[in-house]
Amino acid sequence: MDKFFNPRSIAIVGASKDFTSISGKPIKYLLEHGYAGKIYPVNPKYQEIGNFKCYPGVAEIPGEVDMALIAINYKRVLQVLTDCHAKGVKHAAIFSSGFAEAGEEGKKLQQEITALAKETGMRVLGPNCQGMVNLPNKITAGFSASLENKPLVPGSTGFVTQSGALGYSIFNMAQELGVGFSYIVSTGNEVDLHSLELMEYMMEDDSTNLLVAYLEGIKDGDTFKRVSRRGLELGKPIVALKVGRTDVGQKAASSHTASLTGSDDVFDAFFRQNGIIRVDDIEDIIDIAGLFNNIPLPEGKGLGIVTTSGGAGILAADTAVAMGLAVPELDEATRAKIGTVIPDYGSAMNPVDVTAQVINDPKGFMKVLDAMLDSDNIDGLVVVITMIAGTAGERLARDITDISQRAQKPIAICWTAGDRLMDNCFAILRKGEVPYFKSPVRCVKALGVLMNYGYFRGRWQQRDEVEAGVSASAKTRSAEPAREFLSRCDHRLTEHQGKQLLAQFDIPVTQEQVARTEAEALEIAGRLGFPLAVKVDSPDIMHKTEAGALRLFINSNEELVQAFNEVMENSRKYAPDARINGALVQEMVEKGTEVIVGINNDPQFGPVVVFGLGGIFVEVLKDISMRVAPFNHAQAMDMIKEIKGYGVLAGARGQAPADIEALADVLVKVSRMAETMKDEIKELDINPLLVLPQGKGVKVADALVIKK
Amino acid sequence: MDKFFNPRSIAIVGASKDFTSISGKPIKYLLEHGYAGKIYPVNPKYQEIGNFKCYPGVAEIPGEVDMALIAINYKRVLQVLTDCHAKGVKHAAIFSSGFAEAGEEGKKLQQEITALAKETGMRVLGPNCQGMVNLPNKITAGFSASLENKPLVPGSTGFVTQSGALGYSIFNMAQELGVGFSYIVSTGNEVDLHSLELMEYMMEDDSTNLLVAYLEGIKDGDTFKRVSRRGLELGKPIVALKVGRTDVGQKAASSHTASLTGSDDVFDAFFRQNGIIRVDDIEDIIDIAGLFNNIPLPEGKGLGIVTTSGGAGILAADTAVAMGLAVPELDEATRAKIGTVIPDYGSAMNPVDVTAQVINDPKGFMKVLDAMLDSDNIDGLVVVITMIAGTAGERLARDITDISQRAQKPIAICWTAGDRLMDNCFAILRKGEVPYFKSPVRCVKALGVLMNYGYFRGRWQQRDEVEAGVSASAKTRSAEPAREFLSRCDHRLTEHQGKQLLAQFDIPVTQEQVARTEAEALEIAGRLGFPLAVKVDSPDIMHKTEAGALRLFINSNEELVQAFNEVMENSRKYAPDARINGALVQEMVEKGTEVIVGINNDPQFGPVVVFGLGGIFVEVLKDISMRVAPFNHAQAMDMIKEIKGYGVLAGARGQAPADIEALADVLVKVSRMAETMKDEIKELDINPLLVLPQGKGVKVADALVIKK
Repeated sequence: MDKFFNPRSIAIVGASKDFTSISGKPIKYLLEHGYAGKIYPVNPKYQEIGNFKCYPGVAEIPGEVDMALIAINYKRVLQVLTDCHAKGVKHAAIFSSGFAEAGEEGKKLQQEITALAKETGMRVLGPNCQGMVNLPNKITAGFSASLENKPLVPGSTGFVTQSGALGYSIFNMAQELGVGFSYIVSTGNEVDLHSLELMEYMMEDDSTNLLVAYLEGIKDGDTFKRVSRRGLELGKPIVALKVGRTDVGQKAASSHTASLTGSDDVFDAFFRQNGIIRVDDIEDIIDIAGLFNNIPLPEGKGLGIVTTSGGAGILAADTAVAMGLAVPELDEATRAKIGTVIPDYGSAMNPVDVTAQVINDPKGFMKVLDAMLDSDNIDGLVVVITMIAGTAGERLARDITDISQRAQKPIAICWTAGDRLMDNCFAILRKGEVPYFKSPVRCVKALGVLMNYGYFRGRWQQRDEVEAGVSASAKTRSAEPAREFLSRCDHRLTEHQGKQLLAQFDIPVTQEQVARTEAEALEIAGRLGFPLAVKVDSPDIMHKTEAGALRLFINSNEELVQAFNEVMENSRKYAPDARINGALVQEMVEKGTEVIVGINNDPQFGPVVVFGLGGIFVEVLKDISMRVAPFNHAQAMDMIKEIKGYGVLAGARGQAPADIEALADVLVKVSRMAETMKDEIKELDINPLLVLPQGKGVKVADALVIKK
Repeated sequence: MDKFFNPRSIAIVGASKDFTSISGKPIKYLLEHGYAGKIYPVNPKYQEIGNFKCYPGVAEIPGEVDMALIAINYKRVLQVLTDCHAKGVKHAAIFSSGFAEAGEEGKKLQQEITALAKETGMRVLGPNCQGMVNLPNKITAGFSASLENKPLVPGSTGFVTQSGALGYSIFNMAQELGVGFSYIVSTGNEVDLHSLELMEYMMEDDSTNLLVAYLEGIKDGDTFKRVSRRGLELGKPIVALKVGRTDVGQKAASSHTASLTGSDDVFDAFFRQNGIIRVDDIEDIIDIAGLFNNIPLPEGKGLGIVTTSGGAGILAADTAVAMGLAVPELDEATRAKIGTVIPDYGSAMNPVDVTAQVINDPKGFMKVLDAMLDSDNIDGLVVVITMIAGTAGERLARDITDISQRAQKPIAICWTAGDRLMDNCFAILRKGEVPYFKSPVRCVKALGVLMNYGYFRGRWQQRDEVEAGVSASAKTRSAEPAREFLSRCDHRLTEHQGKQLLAQFDIPVTQEQVARTEAEALEIAGRLGFPLAVKVDSPDIMHKTEAGALRLFINSNEELVQAFNEVMENSRKYAPDARINGALVQEMVEKGTEVIVGINNDPQFGPVVVFGLGGIFVEVLKDISMRVAPFNHAQAMDMIKEIKGYGVLAGARGQAPADIEALADVLVKVSRMAETMKDEIKELDINPLLVLPQGKGVKVADALVIKK
């Protein structure tokens, strides 16, 4: 991929002398931004373009070509790609549109391009894309009008976008606000090179510290998992603007780049479990990237707020609390330091309102900021200033620049005022490369998501160590017996088979056995003891209650014999052709809290474990949480605590708390089973799993497994 | 109040020759912005300031003084106010700080000012405020640096702010973005003139079409109700930035302007039931005011989206759906018109992606916009453009200006691109007074809240007519019997008394009667029939189950006699000193869905009706909705549908739907009772109210009433 991002020579196929056209602009931009490699215009109509010799075809180019930019009618693209391959070109970007997004003919052509790429190994970007820009190395292999701006601002943000128009517009706005980028790549219809591969490259790239992705859909959950994990290891946050959250949005997306947006709930779960920062607006991207270009990675979520306006302080505090940050009270030492500056202060209050007296006592203001930064409770600082104009404002801007540059902790500045009055102050900040916000809310949000990321990453690093041992032991267990067992089952397993499978993964199930005769039933009862349940065991009878094939709370041998016979008879009557293995004699479990645990298969991310409380919680409130498998104990605990009805498990209304540790343990085991058996299991539905009081464990009371 | 907003003469007490100081700036600003009235500087130190004669005291001013601006040390403020009153000054604004926000001494002084205002009838703004600006009439009675900008932009937004620094900073940012205002008033500590009075004035003012309020707390819910209602009548939306949503924010607010922020849930309910647009960021204010200055009031919530970028369209659609707007499919006629421009189109898809071909076919683009505006399903239009630079962009900007100016429906423009590249285009929009956004999300939000407001107002107008008759009949009913009944009860009513009170307001309760003897019990049973419940009736026994003073499902005379005696005996044993009236013999109600209905008293808004489902829904999930009393049937229906567990009432899991109409009816009656008896009832808790299946009504099974 190195040559894709750093081509030493670029051919522009369909090159035009009109430098305002799509096929003329790349030449102009490469020249203007100082591309150091070779430029080969290709067009049979011209002898030369600008000062460059123009070639009739790719074949005629004398030197090696690292990348071809293709901006011709869509009908001729396939031929050109074939030529490129013959020439030994390894990378091509197709700007032309008219493919899958345009109708049937285009879709067919696109399939042919996909096939060609696969066959030849040539890496193809697009079609229907706006190309790639490598800012540090001045490679502008695109035609976006955003490249009119000179000079481009290099920086540490890598940007992958599935929408060329929107992506480059965001890039343009960000650049004009001084936000630097390492790369931007527009991927269009993604016939070959897809967003996640490009992100994976950028993740390992030293010039990139933060990844931004505009996504409509993805093709490969596994790559996303890998990139996310690397991001956490390296401390490079990923910011995702994933659209298609709603039905209408999803429908619109399917007609845009013909991409499947996927289940938004699964994306949400995946983002949450991997610390990916999900944003909802293009401005969030600019805010976060602009800030992170200039601050260290926060290490926790304790936010300090210092303001010249009480109102702005309240707004900042509200925003912080709403997004889960801590706004801690100040400790004794910090309070004492602030007290020397604000005599009336003395309180432990955070936000600290320094009022307009900052104008008269600028040194005091700096003392307050230093005191806050020194406090162990404070992991990051937001400073909110309202209109302070003139020389007082300039002094303030210089002081803020100074402290921002020397602080070991992240600081975000909000200066709520118009440009016209304050530009002298803002100019000082810009010169010092201090990012600043106008809205206290956006300021807190930008720093806040990074603080939440830092906090998440800290926990992730810890728990990963704790889990290392466990995971290793789990992996040593072979899945072969389970596979072998499954191969002998029907498509839809019986309840008993489902539980036998779960037991293979150390998931606790009810004690039970199939009895073919009265005598066997009595023998089993002798071992299990009463009370018992009796149910028909048949792959062909799904609705046991309806069939009269279910008896509960059996307390004696007499009742058992009667129940056995009734269940068998009723079943035969209900479904004369059913295969009946016998009757399942099962322990009755002590009353616990009923929960549901399931596995769904997501087309993008593979097996997803779903959890919820039984009854109305799932059916009426849709109160579920989910995680992409596999995951660890700490993540399972997050998953349990995330549901709204968590209080029921924690012991609401005077009930004893349920065994949440055992529940988390089962969720982890289910997630490992889901991952291990992802090619065999289509669906799992444990309903209910009974969660007994603390210390007493959990037990699967019923389970349905469907094979792939 | 007219003279407060339009003073013909202004005295500046403590006037300074230093025009950069708080007491110098007002003179400078009044002069610079062209104040047409008389200016009287007051300061014994000077003979004149600027070209104005300076007076040693207010008493020495020769002419009448409509308003005094007071910018002196807080200790001398009271004396100056006394002088002002002697002089006949009717309005004063106190810029000085050092009052309730600063400590005990200040608090005392502030109380004295309050008393003086009350006594004299002089209307006092502040203290600790930044004054008032009337933009159309060029009256700048303030000292904010935002008044450095010249000229100020008059417009139709009236702004009241409890934070001077933040409010004027927002004003400054908005002004620089071209957003016009009619007034801005900063109210500071609100010793006398409070935000809601000022809003009430602006609401009736012809130059004002939209009200904005930054609020930390309010003093008077009734005024807010009045202003809100007038707003709906006149079609003037109210936009509120109410801070103190979280604990930390509320604590910070209490130390800022010493205001009580009040229960955020009640504010939220009040805003929702009155169509008040609640925003969370200062930018929302600028966005909404800027847009509404230039568009007609939307009449519904059907949003059309036209875009040059598929990605931006998806983002816009997601935002719209998430905020409850409709993004309707296009009807046949609209589709046909669009089909003539985009041949491949033909779908009913909204958003309409015109792609970059708008550059080649600008007339087609206009046809699409016209087709969308013509559609009956479309109440408002969002147009999202990405980077289209140069002459194509300029033509587009002119076309958009044209259609924005002639459209009968509201249009909001988003042009996602940086200023540097597009300023030629943006300049055309600005010249045409077309507001434009950079973020599709903010664009949809700004138009969307106005569309939701228009939709709400439409329903409000309709339902108000429907309710008129009902309300009138309800009002004719005298509350005297209820008051008289209540006066004979203890502080805490017994269950039976509580129900008798509810019955006075036509709220259905269980049939029941108190029996003092076995014989009476049998006689009552003869009338009610079985099954029955028997409970002790005593003002001194709260916990009937604990006391063994409760028997359910009594099915015969024998059981009844036994139950009666047990209940009476157990009660006497449990509480030997209790007053025992007898045993309540009560019908057992058919099993219905248990809900909870209560009345709380909010210090700002008065009685608030709270509703929720019984059991875990309220206790674990805190799943409640509330409305300020009184309200009508439609609002009660909103309230019922707002809870997360609504599905339980609607008939989840194969249950019959509950009698929601009857439930709404009871909520309305409780709200009227709450309003009528607000001076008598402190608390009401109906738990449970049984909601029977559709058509069968509801019944109060138990109720607790506490008197004030």
